[in-house]
Amino acid sequence: MKRKVCVVITARPSYARVKTALEAIRAHQGLELQLVVAASALLDRYGNALQVIEAEGFRVDRTVYMIVEGENLVTSAKSTGFGLAELATVFNDLKPDMVVSIADRYETIAASVAAAYMNIPLVHLQGGEVTGSIDEKTRHANTKLADIHLVCSESARVRVERMGERSDRVYLTGCPSIDLARQALEAEPRDLAALAAAYTGVGAPVDLARPYLVVMQHPVTTEYAEARRQTATTIDAIDALGVPTLWFWPNVDAGSDGASKAIRNARENGRLAHAHFYKNMRPLDFLSILVNSRGIVGNSSVALRECAFLGVPAVNVGSRQQGRDRGRNVVDVGHDAEAIATAVRRMWSSSERPRDLIYGDGHAGRRIADVLATAPLSIEKMLTY
Amino acid sequence: MKRKVCVVITARPSYARVKTALEAIRAHQGLELQLVVAASALLDRYGNALQVIEAEGFRVDRTVYMIVEGENLVTSAKSTGFGLAELATVFNDLKPDMVVSIADRYETIAASVAAAYMNIPLVHLQGGEVTGSIDEKTRHANTKLADIHLVCSESARVRVERMGERSDRVYLTGCPSIDLARQALEAEPRDLAALAAAYTGVGAPVDLARPYLVVMQHPVTTEYAEARRQTATTIDAIDALGVPTLWFWPNVDAGSDGASKAIRNARENGRLAHAHFYKNMRPLDFLSILVNSRGIVGNSSVALRECAFLGVPAVNVGSRQQGRDRGRNVVDVGHDAEAIATAVRRMWSSSERPRDLIYGDGHAGRRIADVLATAPLSIEKMLTY
Amino acid sequence: MKRKVCVVITARPSYARVKTALEAIRAHQGLELQLVVAASALLDRYGNALQVIEAEGFRVDRTVYMIVEGENLVTSAKSTGFGLAELATVFNDLKPDMVVSIADRYETIAASVAAAYMNIPLVHLQGGEVTGSIDEKTRHANTKLADIHLVCSESARVRVERMGERSDRVYLTGCPSIDLARQALEAEPRDLAALAAAYTGVGAPVDLARPYLVVMQHPVTTEYAEARRQTATTIDAIDALGVPTLWFWPNVDAGSDGASKAIRNARENGRLAHAHFYKNMRPLDFLSILVNSRGIVGNSSVALRECAFLGVPAVNVGSRQQGRDRGRNVVDVGHDAEAIATAVRRMWSSSERPRDLIYGDGHAGRRIADVLATAPLSIEKMLTY
Amino acid sequence: MKRKVCVVITARPSYARVKTALEAIRAHQGLELQLVVAASALLDRYGNALQVIEAEGFRVDRTVYMIVEGENLVTSAKSTGFGLAELATVFNDLKPDMVVSIADRYETIAASVAAAYMNIPLVHLQGGEVTGSIDEKTRHANTKLADIHLVCSESARVRVERMGERSDRVYLTGCPSIDLARQALEAEPRDLAALAAAYTGVGAPVDLARPYLVVMQHPVTTEYAEARRQTATTIDAIDALGVPTLWFWPNVDAGSDGASKAIRNARENGRLAHAHFYKNMRPLDFLSILVNSRGIVGNSSVALRECAFLGVPAVNVGSRQQGRDRGRNVVDVGHDAEAIATAVRRMWSSSERPRDLIYGDGHAGRRIADVLATAPLSIEKMLTY
Repeated sequence: MKRKVCVVITARPSYARVKTALEAIRAHQGLELQLVVAASALLDRYGNALQVIEAEGFRVDRTVYMIVEGENLVTSAKSTGFGLAELATVFNDLKPDMVVSIADRYETIAASVAAAYMNIPLVHLQGGEVTGSIDEKTRHANTKLADIHLVCSESARVRVERMGERSDRVYLTGCPSIDLARQALEAEPRDLAALAAAYTGVGAPVDLARPYLVVMQHPVTTEYAEARRQTATTIDAIDALGVPTLWFWPNVDAGSDGASKAIRNARENGRLAHAHFYKNMRPLDFLSILVNSRGIVGNSSVALRECAFLGVPAVNVGSRQQGRDRGRNVVDVGHDAEAIATAVRRMWSSSERPRDLIYGDGHAGRRIADVLATAPLSIEKMLTY
Repeated sequence: MKRKVCVVITARPSYARVKTALEAIRAHQGLELQLVVAASALLDRYGNALQVIEAEGFRVDRTVYMIVEGENLVTSAKSTGFGLAELATVFNDLKPDMVVSIADRYETIAASVAAAYMNIPLVHLQGGEVTGSIDEKTRHANTKLADIHLVCSESARVRVERMGERSDRVYLTGCPSIDLARQALEAEPRDLAALAAAYTGVGAPVDLARPYLVVMQHPVTTEYAEARRQTATTIDAIDALGVPTLWFWPNVDAGSDGASKAIRNARENGRLAHAHFYKNMRPLDFLSILVNSRGIVGNSSVALRECAFLGVPAVNVGSRQQGRDRGRNVVDVGHDAEAIATAVRRMWSSSERPRDLIYGDGHAGRRIADVLATAPLSIEKMLTY
Repeated sequence: MKRKVCVVITARPSYARVKTALEAIRAHQGLELQLVVAASALLDRYGNALQVIEAEGFRVDRTVYMIVEGENLVTSAKSTGFGLAELATVFNDLKPDMVVSIADRYETIAASVAAAYMNIPLVHLQGGEVTGSIDEKTRHANTKLADIHLVCSESARVRVERMGERSDRVYLTGCPSIDLARQALEAEPRDLAALAAAYTGVGAPVDLARPYLVVMQHPVTTEYAEARRQTATTIDAIDALGVPTLWFWPNVDAGSDGASKAIRNARENGRLAHAHFYKNMRPLDFLSILVNSRGIVGNSSVALRECAFLGVPAVNVGSRQQGRDRGRNVVDVGHDAEAIATAVRRMWSSSERPRDLIYGDGHAGRRIADVLATAPLSIEKMLTY
Repeated sequence: MKRKVCVVITARPSYARVKTALEAIRAHQGLELQLVVAASALLDRYGNALQVIEAEGFRVDRTVYMIVEGENLVTSAKSTGFGLAELATVFNDLKPDMVVSIADRYETIAASVAAAYMNIPLVHLQGGEVTGSIDEKTRHANTKLADIHLVCSESARVRVERMGERSDRVYLTGCPSIDLARQALEAEPRDLAALAAAYTGVGAPVDLARPYLVVMQHPVTTEYAEARRQTATTIDAIDALGVPTLWFWPNVDAGSDGASKAIRNARENGRLAHAHFYKNMRPLDFLSILVNSRGIVGNSSVALRECAFLGVPAVNVGSRQQGRDRGRNVVDVGHDAEAIATAVRRMWSSSERPRDLIYGDGHAGRRIADVLATAPLSIEKMLTY
């Protein structure tokens, strides 16, 4: 009997983080993959991960629309509630042997609570990290609901155990996102212009044969009112620099309306004229863009995770990644246009690209599938102290 | 400015556990009480805590029907989801300065997630205990979502800190349920017959001037299919003993249909002829009944908490209270009719009533109000390691 | 290509009303049956129609728990809302070519709205009747949402057309419940004692070889507070008569808690000692019980529909069936114990059993399947005037 | 005792349609206004009617976020379901004596079902009209759920009665939107440039002292896949004409993503360079803009209702207003760029501005308040035939 593994994907970046694990699960003799795509992963304005997932050959078993419009803190909570209610029906229907919940986005707790309450063994990916903000609460609550923990770094492993989880239920697999980074690094050189041409986006054309920046900045949910101002600060810095830039839209989240407005407003006023704006790219394409860039600016976890492995320099802005393990590629700055500009200028002119294997060696997917096929299936747990 | 404290009551036993804290909050100069009554606390067949709460003089600000019928694991999850969605609207409306979530029932996580996601400081009562079952997961997930922890015992305090919570956000207040126990103990002797006559119930009349047992056994959610069988086993034991018994119906929960069926079936077959069945009593009345009983049988936490303070002997059946701190008043047995009957017979004939102050000294309510009035209001937290 | 017909069953009596149509759809070359079982049809305390449906060989495609506990008017509305939200997901998943919504229970509008809003042709069964109460509003709202109308009686056909529906979309098929009545009437004599023994129930044994009554009384939703009193009145009448009685529990509905309480209370007080209480029976068994009874008392539509065809005398109490076409078998009385008792006494002693074919000739199921296979599939409609 | 009248506003255009009635209710001695703002009326990208409502001095009692993102047919249904569930809680809290539901947007049925199921007398505004599309189903279903009907035109009155409603519950009040039109017509000449400057919008500046067009085109829900193409066709026509144009964004609705995309795409490609795009205006400002325009193009009901009264010429495109009463100001064309352009050219050069009082004389608000204060409050109804 194959173990039925139900993976719930709720956002475009989560898919990128888990893709090689999905491939390994699908290929594993002892596993059957059930795929649920939900929340912002279904929405056009956040890149419609569903289309990417299906285009890459996965069969999607269920889709769950759950995002309540408003993009404020009330609707984050409501979306999670409605998602939880529907995922219960989905799990009751699909009868998985285990559910996989990914990382720390707010809506992930919907899958975790549904599985835990329905006595389905819950596997949590990427627990034990520290970042501050609401993600911190969601991530560790997921850990306390989960039966099996697949962590990305040694320090994460230690933290999960210290929180009272049994050490024989914590597996250090590394992060599947690093697997993709490895593929991007090992791949043949690609024609970036052709690659980028496959995505429409808006704004100025950017010549990818010449130096360019990547920007990716998300709203910080515990600083909701600040989202627009913080994005505007980064805009000021990048606009002042005037270098060719690929700018990626923020995730759906409390505050993303504010962040999007800041960008739209800048564009209406003729600013960021050197930037091209993308909603989404397929993970490997995005990584190729990153590998060939002068560096990344913003507050995406990509800057700390994939870019550590790739040796891509990063200017990390603000508190969103606070506490997360980082390599030598990262420079931290506050929400200060001058400080951001200075750090980016230094990055732009440097040729150092230090690599660190903090988040894995690029073989996480296969390791994860092996754990899922063999880990004990139990729903009883108790603090170890 | 008074701090607005929003307390969410979702079940009859939760109200009993928090009543003296509600009184202290209401009486405190620096606090304003907002009361939300939800879930099974609104339902007749679980004792309609709402009526009790209003009868005892509290003003209820909002009621939220959220229990989806079915009483299986799917509907536990769905109820939690719908409750979460509506509590978000309630919090958005009432704009509390902090939300208080109580203990570990499955639906409590709805209030916890809503508050956490809406950047409202979350106070969790009675964290850090260990019991096994789904309550274990819910309780510790509540801890990881909460900003302030009010714990009942020294060992709970240690555990919450070990889970990575800042020690200056963990307050050892004792359990408010012990406050009621203290009142029941210090009260003038009461006319138990008159007291009991105020509750209808069904079954044989029991003479409370003579020795009697109390039974209270809930379904164990991770052993759903077993609920009916486990209840039937206890029925076998109590029926065989044939002593006068006050039997309290189980909580609404996955499995309670099974548990209720076991009881109804027994009654239809003329068994438990010496028992009288109650749905609910006001907390102080129930405690008076306990104090004067020969002891309690089942798996209620009352047996470990209030009864430790009161010195009421208890036969604790099965795994539901596994891991929870217990005093000398408790004897543990498995789901075995013979073992239960033997333990009850011994309890019935013993005169020992050892008291332990594990869960508090009976002044928790006032301490809780003081903490709520003065604790720092912050929503940012991070693991301490 | 077979047309996929999705039928949504939300209650035990709805299943009985549609069973022969389900059989005919399943057997039809041009149709594929999709079966969704939802609401009280999933709940043990209302007879768990799901088990009956599966026991009778139907494959159930989806189950949707949607009843919010409370059994008051707030939860009727909330249940409908949550059901609507989930049925949308179900229809999106199953992609039916048409949805069939049955009659007029409050929750039926969930399926109707979901189908209408998703541009799925909606077939409404049993429209055009008049009864008063909330059913009246639900039924005609269903009609206005529906594209195809399958009605039970000539007067219903006329009314649906007068409401502005195109006459070529209104089909007079008769009621499938009459098909079962025909089967019960044409069946070989059955051993009623053996039949009844298959159902547990509670209360006194009733000798089915001797004369007996059937009682079935539901709460009237627009008279919510009255439900308990109205049931108590019927109890008074039946208790006074003291004749052997098979009493069927009420539907889940606003007021059913009150109605159930009235019954439980009577039993606890030793009344209705000549009655046996059943939650549910399979339709054919129930009809056999009816055919052999002295008559039916209460406010069930069965008294007007099946019993008209069968010639079973009926005492119809109160306003619930007000306005519905009735045959010569029915006597109407108010909520007055004396009047009820008098009418029942007369019925008990009479031997007249007049038959009327108002609601069909017993061949509705096959006609319905034929219409579903051939009716135009359109979602555009407009008032005919 | 004042009658508590709860009005549910779910969209920007609904507010405009009911504003003078709200004022009259608030001013009426016998009435107390309860205002619930929900659905797209809360969302920035549809003009945030909430802000307008509060800016115009109304106190809002409750807000209900209910739109599930996706803007397809599944999410229309889900949004309605979640809205219904929450409005039930709101009505239970506010305890209105009557609920007012407006017109025919899909989400209006949420308020109608909640009120009907909770035995609250339901008043429906603007029933009895015919338009085709899903609005047609929603509108007449609202009629069948409602107890009191306030209609806008004589032909609507006749239709509501023919649908089986009692004639003494149907009141011909006219449409409150015409009240605003009357105010706009009777107002002193306004400085349109200053008026428009108060709204940001995007696109070319338009000189309002010179001739200009107004465009307003919504997606047609039963032609979902067509929304983008249909909008593109109108874009082709307007772009070809090249005259100064004020273009208003579509409502939130299944299809609005498609419609919005067509507009965004045109703008990115440098088309519609003579147009300025607005999300919303306060009703009176919008009407002043209309009165002074050369005419309106699209499929808004404004073109048929307010513009009939105002004598503003209109080119009505496609099926959305099919069947609705229209005056001499309207020319109908299909989704054909050439036909649209020809009709607009003729309108642009014509000086005829014929007025018709089909939808009222401009005193509907006061009439509505008077009816609400005196109409019988009953929840029992039955077809009149």
